[in-house]
Amino acid sequence: MRGRSGRRRGAPDTKGEILAAARQVFGERGYDGASVRAIAAAAGVDPALVHHYFGTKEKLFLAAMDIPFDPSAIAGAIMDDTSGAGIGERAIRTFLAVWGQPAGRAPILALLRSAMQNEAAARLLRQFVTRAILGRVLSIFEGVPNGALRAEAMVSHLIGLAIVRYVVKLEPIASVPDEDLVRLIAPVLQRYYDGAFEQD
Amino acid sequence: MRGRSGRRRGAPDTKGEILAAARQVFGERGYDGASVRAIAAAAGVDPALVHHYFGTKEKLFLAAMDIPFDPSAIAGAIMDDTSGAGIGERAIRTFLAVWGQPAGRAPILALLRSAMQNEAAARLLRQFVTRAILGRVLSIFEGVPNGALRAEAMVSHLIGLAIVRYVVKLEPIASVPDEDLVRLIAPVLQRYYDGAFEQD
Repeated sequence: MRGRSGRRRGAPDTKGEILAAARQVFGERGYDGASVRAIAAAAGVDPALVHHYFGTKEKLFLAAMDIPFDPSAIAGAIMDDTSGAGIGERAIRTFLAVWGQPAGRAPILALLRSAMQNEAAARLLRQFVTRAILGRVLSIFEGVPNGALRAEAMVSHLIGLAIVRYVVKLEPIASVPDEDLVRLIAPVLQRYYDGAFEQD
Repeated sequence: MRGRSGRRRGAPDTKGEILAAARQVFGERGYDGASVRAIAAAAGVDPALVHHYFGTKEKLFLAAMDIPFDPSAIAGAIMDDTSGAGIGERAIRTFLAVWGQPAGRAPILALLRSAMQNEAAARLLRQFVTRAILGRVLSIFEGVPNGALRAEAMVSHLIGLAIVRYVVKLEPIASVPDEDLVRLIAPVLQRYYDGAFEQD
């Protein structure tokens, strides 16, 4: 461990050093394997200082990856109505609100790009999506048989939509107004919630 | 133009040089902008020799990108029944047949990776998907209002499914048997063909 927290507490680049340490430790150990304690050790500061600056491990991850939105707020917006009615429409509207902004999509695209380049980044993204997004969205799928599979099918459609609309930019889907996409895609996503499906 | 076709006709690396020239010219000019003539010129051979070795521009592209399947055969399998009945199931079955094989998914993933890294590769993929896949699949959507948008929504879902199942490997969707995915996803894709939707 480099330095002591006392010496570093006032250093102007302490936050930056914690973020750099976080990127390194998350990259090496994945989301689940990285602890605030290990990140503090790598930055040479006291864990309490990390909590003071960034709060939870999830918030530290978001700051380190430069993700400007809060997945718990997103999950909350999607789960607004706990009956599952309208979950398809809320999911596509939330998606368009986040991805429609270049500042919103750039860091998620960067994560996705890394995940497609190497397995460590894929693991990081997998664990983060599982903990921070699916873990919360799943509560609305709780009474639904095969809820996790249905929720992931929904998420997979939205990831593909992001790539086709914002990265590959296939026309006409790249230029169609948000409201058209809501009307086209919401009923399809909704079917993942309430459509018939049984596993073998 | 380097060399003459006469001198090069017998050279053992001529095919390799044509493929290297194809990768370069496709990368620089996109799929639509690249011509067999320009690729032949870059390789220093006669265009007739390129046609002799590789056939059409599309087949040359597939060989250059190391894609081991024929999109026209895939489009044919999806459009087997020209009425559109069962198109959702045929689309997911064809998808699983291609992506289920590492040799099938590796080159498509490589294309997708490049498309996420730079705009020239995104353009190449966009034009290729438009010409070689959508152009053919669209014929089955011909009588359907907003057919292109519906077909692209279907394609977007399958691209996202590929990423979540084979790259990010979210569980349980990464390990679920093919037949479960067919039963879960086919009706959803089918809805893009025959579900109600009107653009503003």
